[in-house]
Amino acid sequence: MRKGAAVRLEKDFSIDHYLKRQKKFVDSHLDDFLPSAHTAPEILHETMRYSVFAGGKRIRPILVLATGEALNGELDSLTCLACAIELIHTYSLIHDDLPAMDNDDYRRGQLTAHKKFGEGIAILAGNALLTLAVQTLAEISSVPEKTRLAVILQLCQAVGSRGGMLAGQAMDLETQGKKFSKEHLEQIHSAKTGALIQISVRCASLFAGASQEVCHNLSAFGSGLGLAYQIVDDILDVEGSSSDLGKTSGKDDINEKATYPALYGLETSKNIATDLVETAIQQIQFLGPAGKILRELAHFISVRRF
Amino acid sequence: MRKGAAVRLEKDFSIDHYLKRQKKFVDSHLDDFLPSAHTAPEILHETMRYSVFAGGKRIRPILVLATGEALNGELDSLTCLACAIELIHTYSLIHDDLPAMDNDDYRRGQLTAHKKFGEGIAILAGNALLTLAVQTLAEISSVPEKTRLAVILQLCQAVGSRGGMLAGQAMDLETQGKKFSKEHLEQIHSAKTGALIQISVRCASLFAGASQEVCHNLSAFGSGLGLAYQIVDDILDVEGSSSDLGKTSGKDDINEKATYPALYGLETSKNIATDLVETAIQQIQFLGPAGKILRELAHFISVRRF
Repeated sequence: MRKGAAVRLEKDFSIDHYLKRQKKFVDSHLDDFLPSAHTAPEILHETMRYSVFAGGKRIRPILVLATGEALNGELDSLTCLACAIELIHTYSLIHDDLPAMDNDDYRRGQLTAHKKFGEGIAILAGNALLTLAVQTLAEISSVPEKTRLAVILQLCQAVGSRGGMLAGQAMDLETQGKKFSKEHLEQIHSAKTGALIQISVRCASLFAGASQEVCHNLSAFGSGLGLAYQIVDDILDVEGSSSDLGKTSGKDDINEKATYPALYGLETSKNIATDLVETAIQQIQFLGPAGKILRELAHFISVRRF
Repeated sequence: MRKGAAVRLEKDFSIDHYLKRQKKFVDSHLDDFLPSAHTAPEILHETMRYSVFAGGKRIRPILVLATGEALNGELDSLTCLACAIELIHTYSLIHDDLPAMDNDDYRRGQLTAHKKFGEGIAILAGNALLTLAVQTLAEISSVPEKTRLAVILQLCQAVGSRGGMLAGQAMDLETQGKKFSKEHLEQIHSAKTGALIQISVRCASLFAGASQEVCHNLSAFGSGLGLAYQIVDDILDVEGSSSDLGKTSGKDDINEKATYPALYGLETSKNIATDLVETAIQQIQFLGPAGKILRELAHFISVRRF
């Protein structure tokens, strides 16, 4: 066990305290995984570190750790998985913010990578984070080779062009300013944001050696949660102020993006998100008390944000 | 054996005929690996296919197949490796051509991906090719899990930020318009182009189950060849006409790039490339007659081009 992150369930469990503690834990390990900013080429590694440490909530790695803990998984390997997924998440944000994509100058209150380091280096830094993530997974010697390969494969599918994150980003680009159906919107959100959240839970189950049935149920939990998370993001883009969000609010509207509030209105969108989370939580009832943190997380990272 | 590509050594062996035949073989398999342009999101898959089939010589996959054949490796798995490496090569070209990088409108006589499909989709298509390559490698069930993981790991290192392709691209960007030393130039070229050529030969050796010593010698061969290849590219950028190159010649000079001709002049650059190839070939003398095609390839893909 490295830098111990196991969380005991206490009567006075506080989700805020838990999230803060886990974020600190994840951050210290991300720091270990990333090349130093003094490693050549310095500008590239500086950009990678800048983007990773630009203040994320670490939702995905925290979900990995919480899933692993619910299933009594081994902390060291889960920590590697958690960091790898956060590197992939950061890569997607760097590329999403580029002028050719969402064209955002700020993210989490700080200049986006391309505004600070230039577009070329930002593109390369995103690529390097994806590459480092896969490398990290390939190297986890404590996990059986078969499991490592399954995780690399499923993660590639989750971030790939056929229904994965890249499919979602491409559909998102294509849909701007166009009419879109409810089915199409759900498809975009599930692919763009849902897939990486779902795979965080799924791969943690695989690392913890869970049965196929358990993996299946946890995947379904992750899938609903992932979609709810993106719907709440849409809602916050309408309701939140720029300072709350750390990025420009109302951008979706300006970019004529396919969003839930645009199609359903705010109240219905909130109800959809709430229902998705409740249904997701039902999928993990079988975990009993061991699932308490996952349930708390599900509420917190989705519906409690609005 | 799929679609048979084994090449028998004949007295009247023609490297041109061999290259043409192998390119056809590789192309037909790339066609199988890539999602159809009718798979959603169509624009993304159309861009991936457009870029992959924009007329490359398939040098890296042909090197994979030739190395595998010299070592009596199994053709099916080597073909998957060959295709994965070509997908990675294409990803690097799409990103290299972007306005924020080399800003090229044409590549191999055709519009570059971003000129034809837009920058956002071009960036995503590059990312998707890298992801598909890793996925392809993770799925090759006929190769031992240990070997597959070693290949994924080493390939990530070869294209990563620490001395790999991304390091080369970043150094290349950083060096434009600045003074550079001989050591720095060799470092850029070895990382940017050399690493992927070297790893093509190295991973093929691993797939063929070669001993550590054989892998080491073939890596050294690939390393010299890779550097020579980029030096010849520099030379062709000065000497070639735009129609020969299929891209704008003299771009290196316009972009104030770190190149061998800029530092050493044309004649000395040619001598350096020739010496590198001769030294590389010495590393594979131990292959005897089985190394004939590799030797022919080494000459052809480097010094015979000028």
